Amino acid sequence: MNQDLIAIGKRAQIAANKLALMNTATKNKALLQLANDLIKNKKQIITANQQDLAAATQMPTKFTDRLMVNSQRIEDMANGLRIIADLADPTSQIDKGWITKDGLQILQRRVPLGVIGIIFEARPNVTVDATGLTFKSGNAVILRGGKEAIQTNTALVKILRESLQKQHLPIDAVQLITDTSHAIADEMMNLTDYIDVLIPRGGRALIQRVITTATVPVIETGAGNCHIYIDKDADLTMATNITVNAKVQRPSVCNAAEKLLIHRDVAAEFLPVIAKALMAHGVQLRGDEMACQLVSTIRPVTDEDWKTEYNDLIMAVKIVDSLDDAINHINHYSTHHSESIITNNITRGRYFQQAINSACVYVNASTRFTDGGEFGFGAEIGISTQKLHARGPMGLQQLTTIKYEITGNGQIRK
Amino acid sequence: MNQDLIAIGKRAQIAANKLALMNTATKNKALLQLANDLIKNKKQIITANQQDLAAATQMPTKFTDRLMVNSQRIEDMANGLRIIADLADPTSQIDKGWITKDGLQILQRRVPLGVIGIIFEARPNVTVDATGLTFKSGNAVILRGGKEAIQTNTALVKILRESLQKQHLPIDAVQLITDTSHAIADEMMNLTDYIDVLIPRGGRALIQRVITTATVPVIETGAGNCHIYIDKDADLTMATNITVNAKVQRPSVCNAAEKLLIHRDVAAEFLPVIAKALMAHGVQLRGDEMACQLVSTIRPVTDEDWKTEYNDLIMAVKIVDSLDDAINHINHYSTHHSESIITNNITRGRYFQQAINSACVYVNASTRFTDGGEFGFGAEIGISTQKLHARGPMGLQQLTTIKYEITGNGQIRK
Repeated sequence: MNQDLIAIGKRAQIAANKLALMNTATKNKALLQLANDLIKNKKQIITANQQDLAAATQMPTKFTDRLMVNSQRIEDMANGLRIIADLADPTSQIDKGWITKDGLQILQRRVPLGVIGIIFEARPNVTVDATGLTFKSGNAVILRGGKEAIQTNTALVKILRESLQKQHLPIDAVQLITDTSHAIADEMMNLTDYIDVLIPRGGRALIQRVITTATVPVIETGAGNCHIYIDKDADLTMATNITVNAKVQRPSVCNAAEKLLIHRDVAAEFLPVIAKALMAHGVQLRGDEMACQLVSTIRPVTDEDWKTEYNDLIMAVKIVDSLDDAINHINHYSTHHSESIITNNITRGRYFQQAINSACVYVNASTRFTDGGEFGFGAEIGISTQKLHARGPMGLQQLTTIKYEITGNGQIRK
Repeated sequence: MNQDLIAIGKRAQIAANKLALMNTATKNKALLQLANDLIKNKKQIITANQQDLAAATQMPTKFTDRLMVNSQRIEDMANGLRIIADLADPTSQIDKGWITKDGLQILQRRVPLGVIGIIFEARPNVTVDATGLTFKSGNAVILRGGKEAIQTNTALVKILRESLQKQHLPIDAVQLITDTSHAIADEMMNLTDYIDVLIPRGGRALIQRVITTATVPVIETGAGNCHIYIDKDADLTMATNITVNAKVQRPSVCNAAEKLLIHRDVAAEFLPVIAKALMAHGVQLRGDEMACQLVSTIRPVTDEDWKTEYNDLIMAVKIVDSLDDAINHINHYSTHHSESIITNNITRGRYFQQAINSACVYVNASTRFTDGGEFGFGAEIGISTQKLHARGPMGLQQLTTIKYEITGNGQIRK
């Protein structure tokens, strides 16, 4: 095991122990100061970012746009920290308490997870967002960003740590692994003695590599092969509005819809209308045999399409014979993120919500609402698509665990 | 990947989908019938168990005692199922609900995890307990017991499945992997497409192998290197009673105390008394230099001792200079299961509860209370020593996850 990594782990654990005992007022004050210090050091951040951008001239615009940091984006990062300062501290919460038959008082307290590892790709704002969320919830964070953003991330973490030091707070609350080799990332994924949970943030390839390599527990985030199902009892105007919104309002994100299922009873009426509406927004449609027959501009779909998260202006269409067919297709191909049924039939809507095996199951609304902000959580570290520990938008609460504090007066077990 | 295992996984998933939609009354009635059918088939179970016992004549009595099933133990298994039938169904619960700024209604529902894999060792009662708990919480279970209990487990699962079939319920709610090779266990640990969570139940070696091998998410259970710390402000009579209870009342279980830390201010008074009391119960003591000086019959401790869960009448003693020394030692060597401070000082007791990084932290009570039954959970599938998803005694609630059911009237994201 890499000695530097173990040293980072040990320092994180010491910081985490201090953070767990820190009161909410101290943490909130610190977050506001971190925000101020980011703004004060804008020039330093932008200079570092320009080095990253200069090294990325070969990359597509989509990529450099994510990497780029300007004055406004630094203001946004700082505002993100201020919003987090305003949120309730989950670790100040006692979930419940009771007295046992033997007179023991048990309190179920909410406590930090400890040390959180975040492995992410090109977006430098993750550095600040993740630091804010982990700090507020009493956790230390070890960050490992992509090599394309290394100068920007290094500058950001330097400013954050200097700000903590100035405030006499544990600087190792945030640490950046500056070695961007794959080998170091692999070792980080196995640092079980020091990291309590790993949260990968990025594309499918990154998340798959973390799941396969890590022995540290992982929370899977962000894969979104989301479905809209238009039931035979749908309001077709509502169906059109929601489908267009879910597909085109922001196609690159994980809660955008990728698949459209239509009940055969309404397919002949609905498909030409929605195809025209989607194509007017530049969406390319792929469909099964019946869809292609109904609308000639739809290209044939492949089995690979059903599994694919396009993150682009592409949508695949399937005509289904029944509600159960729709449910079976979705449960088979979905990444279990968000799905929506459009129907005015209460029984069918309720059945869909119960039978679909995904984090967020909608009736008559766009999948685009699966988001910590929209849910009212204030901020999120990602959307969990797994069932263990956290499911759906992960806010501060999901960065904590519980502890039982039991108080007696000499009880022994008979 | 082994084809039989994939077939088992697929069948489990189909059963899980049906169980998720089954109402509580149906599940409760089924559990009572399972209990009756176990009792009706006592002879068949005992005959199978005698084959296992005949093959285990070379094993120590401690082992064969765990393996042995008699009429009374079958009654206990059946009663376990009846108790589970009486418990509240967590999947009938809506944790909370709210209306978002856009008028979406969000319900946070409790839902089953899906398919649970249980890998266990010699105790055949796990087969029935695990089936009862997973069934009541709406999950399908895939069991993989030790080869020493294969005849007994096969008979038990056959009876349970026949009972389900007779009741026209999904028989694949419970399946047993009868191939007891290591290779099959390893493949089961990587059956990510079909198993949602693995819960190993057994010794340290088994749990370590699962953590290292599995890509399916794991919940670690049962490792208990538990500590009792006698503070300088302790009531020493209470301290004696609790220490003796925590060590000797049932030394083989995970919530028994293995280590005794004593504040130096009370060591000279307390250690001779507690040493005498423990030794009267046959406990062998190992201690640090100062402990050995205070009581001549205490043998020197090694560093390995501090990490070891004896599960036996052995206890290691350390004299500490301060409360912080005790906390640091515990946080370093503990398996994070259960620890107790004996003190009458509120500030010191509260600080200990906050600073100790374990699932259950006691003031003035025996660690032996860390148990689903004692906590009032009714039944448990194990004690989780990890922080993710479940921590401490795992009852029915911990075998579930959440789902967001969101209902709107045409909302799209602006």
